[in-house]
Amino acid sequence: MEISKAGSYPFRAEPFHCDFDSRLFLGHLGNYMLNAAEYHSNDRGFGVTYLYPRHLTWVLSRLAIEVNEMPACFTPFHIETWVESAMRYFTNRNFVISGDEDGRPFAYGRSVWAMIDTDTRQPVDILKIRDGLLLSYIDKEKACPIAKSSRVTMTPDAPEVRAIDTNYSDVDLNGHINSIKYIEHIVDLWDVAWYKEHRIQRFEIAYVAESHQGDRLHFFREQTPEGEYCVRIMRETLGEEGLTEVVRSKVKFV
Amino acid sequence: MEISKAGSYPFRAEPFHCDFDSRLFLGHLGNYMLNAAEYHSNDRGFGVTYLYPRHLTWVLSRLAIEVNEMPACFTPFHIETWVESAMRYFTNRNFVISGDEDGRPFAYGRSVWAMIDTDTRQPVDILKIRDGLLLSYIDKEKACPIAKSSRVTMTPDAPEVRAIDTNYSDVDLNGHINSIKYIEHIVDLWDVAWYKEHRIQRFEIAYVAESHQGDRLHFFREQTPEGEYCVRIMRETLGEEGLTEVVRSKVKFV
Repeated sequence: MEISKAGSYPFRAEPFHCDFDSRLFLGHLGNYMLNAAEYHSNDRGFGVTYLYPRHLTWVLSRLAIEVNEMPACFTPFHIETWVESAMRYFTNRNFVISGDEDGRPFAYGRSVWAMIDTDTRQPVDILKIRDGLLLSYIDKEKACPIAKSSRVTMTPDAPEVRAIDTNYSDVDLNGHINSIKYIEHIVDLWDVAWYKEHRIQRFEIAYVAESHQGDRLHFFREQTPEGEYCVRIMRETLGEEGLTEVVRSKVKFV
Repeated sequence: MEISKAGSYPFRAEPFHCDFDSRLFLGHLGNYMLNAAEYHSNDRGFGVTYLYPRHLTWVLSRLAIEVNEMPACFTPFHIETWVESAMRYFTNRNFVISGDEDGRPFAYGRSVWAMIDTDTRQPVDILKIRDGLLLSYIDKEKACPIAKSSRVTMTPDAPEVRAIDTNYSDVDLNGHINSIKYIEHIVDLWDVAWYKEHRIQRFEIAYVAESHQGDRLHFFREQTPEGEYCVRIMRETLGEEGLTEVVRSKVKFV
């Protein structure tokens, strides 16, 4: 049986993954999207099941999510994902999140991934994996009606708005701060009172460098003339001088 | 078709729910257990689907988890759950977490639940709901080979080891700090270096009072003569004098 280019996977807005307003948290939606990406790539032979034993892995470089309406608690939905394009060192993967009941699109996503050697942490030529197997699953035609990630530009004057210590629960199986946890920490820069009046319409995140448990994370934030918020996370590492940028993000509320 | 007393539900150790050692985080295991409890009670007519429209809900009062071996990343497993007993204001619900591959028991759980009126926040007589429907599903015979929760006794000298602010992501759909987030904050009192040498063998938590976003949580910890750790969380609320106890917990490492 031929496997389709796109794959679609069922999820549900679990109660403990929903906020005070009974809407799925953005971080958990991001988590479900990354799960869908894993199922899709494993089903097609270029996922971590194939890569891990060969000391290779996918690394998320950028993620953009645009939300029409966050699924309400208990709502069943599907995440469809496919690869839009691939170069030697990056692939573009898209997502559509739709409700099971009426197929209504809840959200869309775009992501950029690299592949690295887990021993050397160096990039690997994606097109050489299984003789370019991934290329046979590229779907250039399928529409993803949201803009690609843009460059997040911030002035040096952006004030520091929070600093947090990183803990055991922040660390993923690569020993780094978990991609999803950064999203959670960023959305936490605004409080419940703010979310009673606003919701996130578009969220972008770019992963610039890694951080580890024990690092202290400093959050800098400023508003653009268009009313969007840019956030930069810098890590403070014991034994290193100064701060190192780890994440840039842009958040648009409505 | 008659519905069995116990219900069993499939889960998987999702990659972003696993720690640096590729083992499922305790908080996420707890989350999956609460999901299983929700499926089980909804399938049998006394879950939140029935309760919410009637302004009633289940409230978790105590949870104890004993772990033989945490499921490794990507491992499929089932959580079986059933009600062991019920009184007017409390039910006891048990859990067995077993691997799909060889049925090996990964962990066991015991929990205590109350039912409340969501308007008055007052306890409700569980045995009056649907003419005591829940009683027809009680299974007294099924074994759960772990001890019930014990009373966590701490001296007034237990030192404060951490204080944290609560954020948007800590709050659940009832507007309170999420039961699972407390577990995450407690396991975070130890760092990655500690977890490289130790794993949690038994974890107990008792939910004493509620806290809200904006509250500051103070963590007090001391070791018992048996080498277990007791943790008390006290909330500091703007406009209230002093600290109020919200959670007590006991953690045993091996």
